[in-house]
Amino acid sequence: MKCHWQLKDSEDLMDERQRIALVIQYLGTHFQGWQRQGKGERTVQEELEKAIASVIDRRVPVVAAGRTDTGVHAAAQVAHFDVSGPIPPQRWATILNSRLPEDILIRGSARVAPTWHARFSALWRRYRYTLYTHANPNLFVRHLTWHYYYQPLDANRIQAALDPLVGRHHLSAFHRAGSSRKHSWVDIQTAQCSSQDPFVAIEVQANGFLYGMMRLLVGLLVKVGAAEMTPTEFTHLWQEERRDLVKYAAPAQGLCLLRVGYPDPPFPPEVWFDTQPQLKLGSTE
Amino acid sequence: MKCHWQLKDSEDLMDERQRIALVIQYLGTHFQGWQRQGKGERTVQEELEKAIASVIDRRVPVVAAGRTDTGVHAAAQVAHFDVSGPIPPQRWATILNSRLPEDILIRGSARVAPTWHARFSALWRRYRYTLYTHANPNLFVRHLTWHYYYQPLDANRIQAALDPLVGRHHLSAFHRAGSSRKHSWVDIQTAQCSSQDPFVAIEVQANGFLYGMMRLLVGLLVKVGAAEMTPTEFTHLWQEERRDLVKYAAPAQGLCLLRVGYPDPPFPPEVWFDTQPQLKLGSTE
Repeated sequence: MKCHWQLKDSEDLMDERQRIALVIQYLGTHFQGWQRQGKGERTVQEELEKAIASVIDRRVPVVAAGRTDTGVHAAAQVAHFDVSGPIPPQRWATILNSRLPEDILIRGSARVAPTWHARFSALWRRYRYTLYTHANPNLFVRHLTWHYYYQPLDANRIQAALDPLVGRHHLSAFHRAGSSRKHSWVDIQTAQCSSQDPFVAIEVQANGFLYGMMRLLVGLLVKVGAAEMTPTEFTHLWQEERRDLVKYAAPAQGLCLLRVGYPDPPFPPEVWFDTQPQLKLGSTE
Repeated sequence: MKCHWQLKDSEDLMDERQRIALVIQYLGTHFQGWQRQGKGERTVQEELEKAIASVIDRRVPVVAAGRTDTGVHAAAQVAHFDVSGPIPPQRWATILNSRLPEDILIRGSARVAPTWHARFSALWRRYRYTLYTHANPNLFVRHLTWHYYYQPLDANRIQAALDPLVGRHHLSAFHRAGSSRKHSWVDIQTAQCSSQDPFVAIEVQANGFLYGMMRLLVGLLVKVGAAEMTPTEFTHLWQEERRDLVKYAAPAQGLCLLRVGYPDPPFPPEVWFDTQPQLKLGSTE
């Protein structure tokens, strides 16, 4: 039998609603993306909401900074949910990790203000696309890279194509059909291509990303890197909004949501910055 | 109806027995090690033999250079099998990859002399053990590293403990019970510890490895790295064959068979050397 004061205590705690922010890593390989679809598909949101429900016996929605597509990974997705009860905010990471499948991991959890919003408070998102260019396939990178060995890629040419993208542009050329977004304006803050043989990485930071944008960009950038198109032709193509000429989307497994930026970051940088390792294959001795 | 010459041709080909060498990568996570056990356990050897049998309709044994333990990975395991028939040796890699599960990959295949033997021709094996020392767990390295965040590790102290191991020694202190091997003599050729924060890697190359040796070594080396034991104490311990004081085996998921050395290598270095990427987590910008 429960005593009156116990019930009362518990009610008091239930009243104190908290907003919890999470930093989430996942391997997109076996997910139909972030967003719950209600059709029996396996999604990250669904797995997280089930894990939270298994703790508090109640379904609450989890809101993410970026709704990644099928097969896309996240090194530091950010999300929030509202909850009442006695669990200290920092404990949520450990509690959820013990209930989540092996392809999701919570890096950290923290309490945020009730007005803080994982999606609407975010100032920018940063994505990294990784290509693996060696002729032989490699198991240790296969699920994280696009195996592109058809032609050599010149990172300097790709960088020359990326440079004019920085700034505010109307990028309908890289806007896949099927999104609810009404315009194609994007503020690109940084766009970098780096190469450490046999890997080529393309990182773009922007206020937001259009549906399919990063994969359409990379699908065309490899043409520049492989010298099938000049950087100038690339630039004219998107300036003239030639969506019809952007035919190929790079495969999802090379793409990773790397970071999300907030004016008032709920976590210290070491919890959520650069949490996707860069890969290095040493020279033979 | 088959013509006589077709049957004859086919018989001719069947007579020509070839020994095929493979370079194999696998993630040990969901395997009960390399060796087929005949008890319904999932092993790499079993999966490979099933894949080969699905091509040639006949079970042939696959012999590996090193029989890795449950949970241990391989970046470049080497194995061989004997086969007749018209398939060109180099084609085996592609053919088997299309029939293997996603946690095994063949890097390359080549014909070798009928006397060449994956295990007995090998001069040395090289293993790498990787530790991840950051406080927060990381999904992208979790299955490939030991998450060791209890105390800071000093790579120089570990190196000082490794140096006296180079040479021919009786290492019964690091010899787990349960192997058929009758002695504990090992020729260690190189033993190196390197650190690129938050990763510490320990690589050992030897003519052969005792059962459980690498994991018992690392389990004790972290005590040296964490300053709970001096390098001299470490050395005395194995010189005095104090197996009773070597209590802890480092977890399997940090261990990877990196390379195997042969006097007459069947593959060029780029196919099988350094095929486990080294991980790098960049500093925050």
